[in-house]
Amino acid sequence: MDPVDRLIELALEEDIGPGDITTDPLLPADALGRGVVRAKEDLVLCGLDVFRRVFARLDAAVACRSGCRDGERIAAGRAVLTAEGPLPSLLRGERTALNFLQRLSGVATHTSRWVAALGDGPARLVDTRKTTPGWRVLEKYAVRVGGARNHRMGLFDGVLIKDNHIAAAGGIRPAVEAVRRSASHLVRIEVETADLDQVDEALAAGVDVIMLDNMDPDRIRRATARIAGRARVEVSGGVTLERLPALAAAGVDLISAGALTHQARAVDLSMKIERT
Amino acid sequence: MDPVDRLIELALEEDIGPGDITTDPLLPADALGRGVVRAKEDLVLCGLDVFRRVFARLDAAVACRSGCRDGERIAAGRAVLTAEGPLPSLLRGERTALNFLQRLSGVATHTSRWVAALGDGPARLVDTRKTTPGWRVLEKYAVRVGGARNHRMGLFDGVLIKDNHIAAAGGIRPAVEAVRRSASHLVRIEVETADLDQVDEALAAGVDVIMLDNMDPDRIRRATARIAGRARVEVSGGVTLERLPALAAAGVDLISAGALTHQARAVDLSMKIERT
Amino acid sequence: MDPVDRLIELALEEDIGPGDITTDPLLPADALGRGVVRAKEDLVLCGLDVFRRVFARLDAAVACRSGCRDGERIAAGRAVLTAEGPLPSLLRGERTALNFLQRLSGVATHTSRWVAALGDGPARLVDTRKTTPGWRVLEKYAVRVGGARNHRMGLFDGVLIKDNHIAAAGGIRPAVEAVRRSASHLVRIEVETADLDQVDEALAAGVDVIMLDNMDPDRIRRATARIAGRARVEVSGGVTLERLPALAAAGVDLISAGALTHQARAVDLSMKIERT
Amino acid sequence: MDPVDRLIELALEEDIGPGDITTDPLLPADALGRGVVRAKEDLVLCGLDVFRRVFARLDAAVACRSGCRDGERIAAGRAVLTAEGPLPSLLRGERTALNFLQRLSGVATHTSRWVAALGDGPARLVDTRKTTPGWRVLEKYAVRVGGARNHRMGLFDGVLIKDNHIAAAGGIRPAVEAVRRSASHLVRIEVETADLDQVDEALAAGVDVIMLDNMDPDRIRRATARIAGRARVEVSGGVTLERLPALAAAGVDLISAGALTHQARAVDLSMKIERT
Amino acid sequence: MDPVDRLIELALEEDIGPGDITTDPLLPADALGRGVVRAKEDLVLCGLDVFRRVFARLDAAVACRSGCRDGERIAAGRAVLTAEGPLPSLLRGERTALNFLQRLSGVATHTSRWVAALGDGPARLVDTRKTTPGWRVLEKYAVRVGGARNHRMGLFDGVLIKDNHIAAAGGIRPAVEAVRRSASHLVRIEVETADLDQVDEALAAGVDVIMLDNMDPDRIRRATARIAGRARVEVSGGVTLERLPALAAAGVDLISAGALTHQARAVDLSMKIERT
Amino acid sequence: MDPVDRLIELALEEDIGPGDITTDPLLPADALGRGVVRAKEDLVLCGLDVFRRVFARLDAAVACRSGCRDGERIAAGRAVLTAEGPLPSLLRGERTALNFLQRLSGVATHTSRWVAALGDGPARLVDTRKTTPGWRVLEKYAVRVGGARNHRMGLFDGVLIKDNHIAAAGGIRPAVEAVRRSASHLVRIEVETADLDQVDEALAAGVDVIMLDNMDPDRIRRATARIAGRARVEVSGGVTLERLPALAAAGVDLISAGALTHQARAVDLSMKIERT
Repeated sequence: MDPVDRLIELALEEDIGPGDITTDPLLPADALGRGVVRAKEDLVLCGLDVFRRVFARLDAAVACRSGCRDGERIAAGRAVLTAEGPLPSLLRGERTALNFLQRLSGVATHTSRWVAALGDGPARLVDTRKTTPGWRVLEKYAVRVGGARNHRMGLFDGVLIKDNHIAAAGGIRPAVEAVRRSASHLVRIEVETADLDQVDEALAAGVDVIMLDNMDPDRIRRATARIAGRARVEVSGGVTLERLPALAAAGVDLISAGALTHQARAVDLSMKIERT
Repeated sequence: MDPVDRLIELALEEDIGPGDITTDPLLPADALGRGVVRAKEDLVLCGLDVFRRVFARLDAAVACRSGCRDGERIAAGRAVLTAEGPLPSLLRGERTALNFLQRLSGVATHTSRWVAALGDGPARLVDTRKTTPGWRVLEKYAVRVGGARNHRMGLFDGVLIKDNHIAAAGGIRPAVEAVRRSASHLVRIEVETADLDQVDEALAAGVDVIMLDNMDPDRIRRATARIAGRARVEVSGGVTLERLPALAAAGVDLISAGALTHQARAVDLSMKIERT
Repeated sequence: MDPVDRLIELALEEDIGPGDITTDPLLPADALGRGVVRAKEDLVLCGLDVFRRVFARLDAAVACRSGCRDGERIAAGRAVLTAEGPLPSLLRGERTALNFLQRLSGVATHTSRWVAALGDGPARLVDTRKTTPGWRVLEKYAVRVGGARNHRMGLFDGVLIKDNHIAAAGGIRPAVEAVRRSASHLVRIEVETADLDQVDEALAAGVDVIMLDNMDPDRIRRATARIAGRARVEVSGGVTLERLPALAAAGVDLISAGALTHQARAVDLSMKIERT
Repeated sequence: MDPVDRLIELALEEDIGPGDITTDPLLPADALGRGVVRAKEDLVLCGLDVFRRVFARLDAAVACRSGCRDGERIAAGRAVLTAEGPLPSLLRGERTALNFLQRLSGVATHTSRWVAALGDGPARLVDTRKTTPGWRVLEKYAVRVGGARNHRMGLFDGVLIKDNHIAAAGGIRPAVEAVRRSASHLVRIEVETADLDQVDEALAAGVDVIMLDNMDPDRIRRATARIAGRARVEVSGGVTLERLPALAAAGVDLISAGALTHQARAVDLSMKIERT
Repeated sequence: MDPVDRLIELALEEDIGPGDITTDPLLPADALGRGVVRAKEDLVLCGLDVFRRVFARLDAAVACRSGCRDGERIAAGRAVLTAEGPLPSLLRGERTALNFLQRLSGVATHTSRWVAALGDGPARLVDTRKTTPGWRVLEKYAVRVGGARNHRMGLFDGVLIKDNHIAAAGGIRPAVEAVRRSASHLVRIEVETADLDQVDEALAAGVDVIMLDNMDPDRIRRATARIAGRARVEVSGGVTLERLPALAAAGVDLISAGALTHQARAVDLSMKIERT
Repeated sequence: MDPVDRLIELALEEDIGPGDITTDPLLPADALGRGVVRAKEDLVLCGLDVFRRVFARLDAAVACRSGCRDGERIAAGRAVLTAEGPLPSLLRGERTALNFLQRLSGVATHTSRWVAALGDGPARLVDTRKTTPGWRVLEKYAVRVGGARNHRMGLFDGVLIKDNHIAAAGGIRPAVEAVRRSASHLVRIEVETADLDQVDEALAAGVDVIMLDNMDPDRIRRATARIAGRARVEVSGGVTLERLPALAAAGVDLISAGALTHQARAVDLSMKIERT
């Protein structure tokens, strides 16, 4: 099963368990209703499809429709989505569907602020693997919706040689060579460097991307100058919203920030349900 | 399978997928290593057992030990946990295990600030169902570790009659009666009220707990006075850290805040791995 | 997946395995048929929805309809349900669907006899956790359909402190206090007592429900008198259909009997299938 | 996963759900205990291995040992099994493990009475597919432990052509021929017959086993005489414990009775747990 | 879940993983298309239903139709199937659906050559358990489609006593007796024999089928003569396409060959997809 | 669960189902044995770890040891692996474990012949996505063991723009640009070309890899000359073992062949099991 469906299933089961002991005895099974989801603060909307899938898994008779699309800026108070169908199912799924929409819109909204702060230069803002466990595909999607780009999805679709790998292999060159013998030709090799000597080693090994880890602005500028387009340059570590313009000005290609996902908070959306 | 194990499995699969294309070709399968997890900011620790279970599921040969316990306040810089075993497994599991620890410690740390702001009176701070989908059991645990209490776990272990239920049933009394005919004698009945008339209706129906939803301080005081101990009183809606002392002073029994979970952010912990 | 769907899936797989080696070579895949389910003894019907879900999971083209409802008393010989659709699917699902209906109607029928024996007083008849493993939700539902009530669904939606817990905690009071610090405010606390001293201890600890375990009628009357409405009273242990009136007369609130589920037998229903 | 493991998992999850809210706050996680299981009525023991597997799945640190074996007759009061390990795990698994043991021993005990009633002749008593959904492998095992034999396990390991198949295929001969073209040479073909004409047809088609469905004793004798050893003879339908000797005397090879499983009740066993 | 559905799910997940990074950004989600599957060599078609199920699981909006049926001989160049629906889903499912069709048609085509080589005598060609792990039901189906028969499906639907069993039981007779006490009356007993003495032992034990393992033609003829119809005769081991006529001439009933499945290769089919 | 573990589980379930009806009644559960796996033809060994995992999942008490390693050339007759433990488990797992080892060694052996035919030049032989459904990770591993390289693992870890994508996007340039806006910087972009005009377009769009699809040797040489190192060159389509040297001589970087996996056959290995 698709990882998103597995997370949805897990979420519905943890909330509903053996049954909704409030709704079940109260409502006739055939009561119908309508729920309207409304933004309660300004936000970048994200998660319409997941919201719909939560209800689809719970009860195929619930229909969701929306005049908005993911990535749209929504002002507080605006209605973004309507769900119609069996009232007991609307009540059972409301909290879970909203929890998804609130967190994904939170990540997209948060990311969009970082993207705005970065400005229009060639440097790209990218995420990391510091995502909420179980949410990798969804949060990486929300980052794209918020206007930033994705780093690799996981350990399987990109090579990133870190300090531990370098130490274990006895240097950057042997590490790169070992990986190059095995990796698919469609995957690039990135190496994490801590100082300019390692940058030189990485260049000598012919890597595709060089990550400058936790370097100060001066060293970043010197490293970028030395690389001189022979590899793409990523800065990582200690990246804050305030530092973005300076990092971009240093001429790097990529700025990665775990904060896009792990410092995002849910935004406020509510669902008003009525019997119809 | 236990919901926590299912989330751990999902998290490992989304990160590792068909394999770690960096580590696998680089390291001999029998290389050994040690990783030390360290706090990089002040925090309330939470998630030691989940951290251990991530590695247990990945490779039973990884052993974790810690001199700390969940709930302990940790100063920045302190080592909190050591994992030892096959080096490739340490590298494969590092990110996922840390992502769990960072979020759970984040919720516990965030909650502990709210608990401190509430002070020592009889009012209890409780969470809600606004948790990260897939994380219900874990985040409710982190809330307890942070010093607050849990509201019901889901729709199955407590009755909470909301406005939609009341409207559907034609009033508080018929709603309460319908549920009472069906609920186990070990479960209490709570009713959400929007004004003092509904508080009176709820009292007349003999409910166990009355939720005052989005009321201002004055109305909360009047409601509490009218209830006069005949039911427990919960306030909900628009609760902020700043309002906690005033709410507590209004004599309520329970203050519920979704912010304990949905406004928490990950705290910073890192893992330094070495070959041994 | 919903626990009932998981049980249905398990049941279909254990019966069909890699295929129905009789039906598959015999019947054209597009043959249509109709099956009529008929009671072969007097019974209280229970399980119409599960019957339908067995076929829904097997083949969405099978349609079930019934003029009866769960809880209805059915005389021997009456038709209770018709299933129509692909004949091979009807033949493949018949036994499994009937096995569900026969057992659930068996529990409902058995329970309804106990309810009749109890009579009209205020005492409620409740079930226990002595259900068929894998069938908890279904059998508890059949108990309600048969006219009795449910005790807690499992270990998670009600507190029941038993002799082992009391011994481990060093007395009723410390046990109650430990649980009270942790339990949600929507869950009540029940304590099992073996004698009047324990009843006094439980009252002193302010518990919500007191279980009188395996006490004789005289002791039950004395305990009930001493409790005097300060807690609800449940009797448990050695409850038989014959003893019900006497127990009810002793003034208890709840009478729990594992026999409702573990002494029930399947009732007889058959399904006659024809090609159409 | 093995169907028995799947049922055990389902059973543990339905009982424990998100946690044991009584035991968890009361007991230190490292408390140890011992539970002794004792028969509370005379019974044929069955299910020792499943009992052990319930605890193995819950907590590998629980060890079970028994001086008895499945199939042994146990007198009321005798201890049959001891489980030792973490006390919280013993308390969490007790009810589920016992529920398995009680039902399986119930089926074995019930079956053993039928076997005794049948006496020592050549006729075999066999079960049917009227088992508790989810329990096929376990209940068929309990039938063997009780001294009877198994009919086919499901639709996949034996051919049984019933009235619906005969009607659909246009007669016994075409039905048998269609199946014979497809079935493995290791599987026998049995045909259900309603009268002597069908018995003749089945003999002419060369079937391996002829089922006499719901025939009276006289017709059974005549059918058996006509078959005269050219096929094995099974009687089915309306078989009661009282009729067993007469059926056996009619010279049939096999007597099948759904009652072995669907009329069995749980027998009484209890588990006394102490802290050690 | 059905084993075929489980294999389909596994196959789709291993190919699509977290997403199709080529198709997703390129195509509008609502683009429609049509794919035509064409044979690129002469083949016996097999797997139309699995092909359809791959797309059904991926996207219910894809419709497949075919004017062919499994078992039909298809000349190179002929169109065998058309799939229509959302273009992104056609692109995502193409490879997986084709991989199934290519292998199953490969097994059916390969088998049909062996069947032709065997000729028209009474000897049946049967498969073995040497199938591709995960593909048992599918490959056994392809063998039937190719014109041969199935041996038992697995260890559960037929008894085959091999040399190891005989050694462990202390001879053929005790082995047969032990199994006969336990097996259902609908299952036959086959014994593997290595020489004529074992054939005699097997006949004396009254087995249903005797397997002559790795015997030369002369010994096969002598064994068949000695058995003289008292049991069916299967030859196994070292069976090649070239030896089939000689084996059939030796008068055996069954010739089993693992090569039907484990020496089959995929045949060539392609799918041309266009936007519509 | 890991895809390999899921395939192993599926394979064991399809073979063992509800039980091994030959072994179970014959052998005492505590009988011990040893099985020795031997090559029956010359082969390149592959699958030792999967073999071990089959038994680990079946019974943790079975221990496998081997003096060989994957990739080793094994002469017919050599013992490659020994498994020891409970005899019933050895008999139950033998066929499934061997079926894995036979197919994986078959793919490795087959691949090694192609690698030898290719010779020592710079051109790499790579596989495709034409693998046995469910076996992607395993067969790609066997290809590496046989000495060739892997193309992308699936649709998620490399961009391959095919004719359908180009048509849908309205040309190579717009297709490449759309993907480039979305893909991670660690993934390369490959475009399939049918003629030299498309090669020029691909070069103009700055792609990383150009696939020459089904071109004749002359056109391949001209395309390679025109590309002149500005992109890597892959040839695909109609690749046979015989054509390998000529393709390599044409100066391409990569030669992809689905035949490495879909034309491989199982090699012969047997397991001799004895009671110990």
